[in-house]
Amino acid sequence: MNFKEDTITAIVTPLGVGAISVIRISGENAISAADRIFQGNQSLISAASHSLKYGKIISPDGEIVDDVVVSIFKAPNSYTGENSIEISCHGNPTITRRITELLYDLGIRNAEPGEFTKRAFLNGRIDLSQAEAVMELISARSEASLRGARNQLDGLLSSKVNELRSMLVNTSSLVELELDFAEEDIEFVDRHELIKRISNIISEIDLLLSSYAFGRVIRDGVNVALVGQPNVGKSSLLNYLLKEYRAIVSSIPGTTRDIIREEVVIDGVLYRLFDTAGIRQTDDEIEIEGVKRSREAVKNADLVLFINDVVQNISVDLYDEIKELISENKIIVVLNKVDIKHTSLLKADISISAKTGEGIYELFDLLKEKALGSESYSEKGAVVSNMRHYNCLKQAKQNLENARESCNLNLSGEFISVDLRNAENSLAEITGEITTDDILNNIFMHFCIGK
Amino acid sequence: MNFKEDTITAIVTPLGVGAISVIRISGENAISAADRIFQGNQSLISAASHSLKYGKIISPDGEIVDDVVVSIFKAPNSYTGENSIEISCHGNPTITRRITELLYDLGIRNAEPGEFTKRAFLNGRIDLSQAEAVMELISARSEASLRGARNQLDGLLSSKVNELRSMLVNTSSLVELELDFAEEDIEFVDRHELIKRISNIISEIDLLLSSYAFGRVIRDGVNVALVGQPNVGKSSLLNYLLKEYRAIVSSIPGTTRDIIREEVVIDGVLYRLFDTAGIRQTDDEIEIEGVKRSREAVKNADLVLFINDVVQNISVDLYDEIKELISENKIIVVLNKVDIKHTSLLKADISISAKTGEGIYELFDLLKEKALGSESYSEKGAVVSNMRHYNCLKQAKQNLENARESCNLNLSGEFISVDLRNAENSLAEITGEITTDDILNNIFMHFCIGK
Repeated sequence: MNFKEDTITAIVTPLGVGAISVIRISGENAISAADRIFQGNQSLISAASHSLKYGKIISPDGEIVDDVVVSIFKAPNSYTGENSIEISCHGNPTITRRITELLYDLGIRNAEPGEFTKRAFLNGRIDLSQAEAVMELISARSEASLRGARNQLDGLLSSKVNELRSMLVNTSSLVELELDFAEEDIEFVDRHELIKRISNIISEIDLLLSSYAFGRVIRDGVNVALVGQPNVGKSSLLNYLLKEYRAIVSSIPGTTRDIIREEVVIDGVLYRLFDTAGIRQTDDEIEIEGVKRSREAVKNADLVLFINDVVQNISVDLYDEIKELISENKIIVVLNKVDIKHTSLLKADISISAKTGEGIYELFDLLKEKALGSESYSEKGAVVSNMRHYNCLKQAKQNLENARESCNLNLSGEFISVDLRNAENSLAEITGEITTDDILNNIFMHFCIGK
Repeated sequence: MNFKEDTITAIVTPLGVGAISVIRISGENAISAADRIFQGNQSLISAASHSLKYGKIISPDGEIVDDVVVSIFKAPNSYTGENSIEISCHGNPTITRRITELLYDLGIRNAEPGEFTKRAFLNGRIDLSQAEAVMELISARSEASLRGARNQLDGLLSSKVNELRSMLVNTSSLVELELDFAEEDIEFVDRHELIKRISNIISEIDLLLSSYAFGRVIRDGVNVALVGQPNVGKSSLLNYLLKEYRAIVSSIPGTTRDIIREEVVIDGVLYRLFDTAGIRQTDDEIEIEGVKRSREAVKNADLVLFINDVVQNISVDLYDEIKELISENKIIVVLNKVDIKHTSLLKADISISAKTGEGIYELFDLLKEKALGSESYSEKGAVVSNMRHYNCLKQAKQNLENARESCNLNLSGEFISVDLRNAENSLAEITGEITTDDILNNIFMHFCIGK
């Protein structure tokens, strides 16, 4: 695949004022265009790839716009696979604007979101699941999500998918060979052997599918709803966490989550803590909306912390109400205020003191264990964390089940072959060997500008 | 001057999420330290200066932290004059934090604000006025202020100051030669010739001093207070400007300016427009504070727009009140609403229509002319825009006037010599040839981190 397009530019560093901003240019004319506004000891076009040149950006009327250091990457040895230039200038938005305006005058246009990475994909530098990992790497908000994105960028998922594809290709080529000799009515492949092979691939896909719960938590964090009667210490717990652990202050733009309280990263995992004011049905007009949202939060939570303390009565009714909203194995019964006394009638999963911090690390160990599952997924193996990949795998599994069914029904090779091909295509969509403009647009529109 | 220090690091790109963030390391161990966390085809220490190496940042326990491109600058050919490394990684705060933490473990510390530029100065890469220009370049908020900072960074002020210093050195060496032969009681230099030389330098300094008003406006923008009776169209004027011209939305952090309304850049110059609600003395408790602030704004303004319209009575009293607060030559009488009718009894400096835009460009031409002065300063000559430089020049002038006075009084060469030396030192402070820790700290503490 060799993809030629016009030359594009974008500011690739975060917006704002800083010591340095970087402007990237990519495309066939990147180096020659940059040369027209660059003045240094040597022209950029004559410079070696992967070299740095100090010089000045000069406007056509001879005015010095800025001192810069220019990085030169010659095709195909660049991120995009095209000729690329990175101009490192002073981090002032007025300067970056002036430089990009000079580039516009040379016929270079603004890059669309994700367009550099899209070109890297189209030029065969990375596959589609790796391109998606780039975006996830940038937006990862915890060490675990970072490792998950790295894992995918390093191609662990791609390798696994390619392994499955080659298993499939081997299998379906047998069936197709049989079809080529159809007149002779010879059955090349033993149907039992075929079913065994297909089942084998299905189990491998099942393994990947079942890693999705783990992958999603790793990527997006764990949604935890805090439920409890007034004064059992929900706020104290939140305050303790914010004091002791790194809090993430920025929230995801564009989403309104009125009752979200705090996000903390503990042991590399992101927890999104929802402090639910009350989940009990009420007639109070003002409370109705709050209760509705709280119940929504409990329903959508990965886990619920049902918090009680050692002094108040245990609210059995409240526990029953939680159970109506979420399955019981997602509820963790917490006994708070064990600094006051250590015994209680409550059979709790864990005892803590939000005042002294006792048991809190253990609480998050338990949360992590419950959220990530007891299966031995490792961030070092292939993990599915992206819904698109999950859906492709589910589709492939469906196709394979159809193929297996055809084998069982002793249908002709044509039926089996079609389903095996479809399964192959579904897998090829993950790495982008088969793709459509719609799929690509949908993926890259979520990228940030400059990547 | 050769300045050896420990190795420092900072994120040099604006904070936040983006495609790329850049981490700079500077100091003797910069390259060897980076090598310990970098894995690529080639070690960084064996790579050529000004080359780019693609590779991975690896933690001591073997985990891949990120794919990076590393820029290598070997001493003395770097910004700081020291060994320097720039690590270009994915623009995720979690990644930059992890990489800097790996660097801390190697004994590298966080750079203080401006420390890279301070080292560039201490290593003789740039002089002090150029170091100050770097900060101004980053914080410049209009094209004019950018050009002013560039002018200073390109050394126009430094050259001029050095020229004056060499004139001074020549002059004072004559006087000192005379002192060396003092026993012989010979007057080497004709006192009239000496006075002529000193006066010559004073006039050159006067020229620089008088450029300060221009330089300050270029750098900081023009403070314009809008005064007028209700409904003469102050808000319409502001709205028109914001619609037609680029508005600067960010305001300088840490300053509270309750009545500031808007900032616009017109023709490359920044105007800070203060909409004064009322400046007339009042007894109304609620209004008193507002009036106080409005009067303060008028007093501190570079220019006042006294806005009237073609239909209302002209408020002679109001004009008189403005004159009490600011000198008459800073008041521009504006006649608004000329779209309604073109004649008025008012003798205005300029007629406009905030509705149609008529005359508004001319209004800003007039503002620019008044603010920048009619003197033919050019951004291409040496311009003083920094108060520290202004004060050094004033001090040098004072020293020279003392020397001239001593000549006039026919005092002995010793007196003249001391003042000439002091003048020399005052000039040397501008470029930092003579400086103190206090001066340096005071300058660099205002820098941003990473510069």
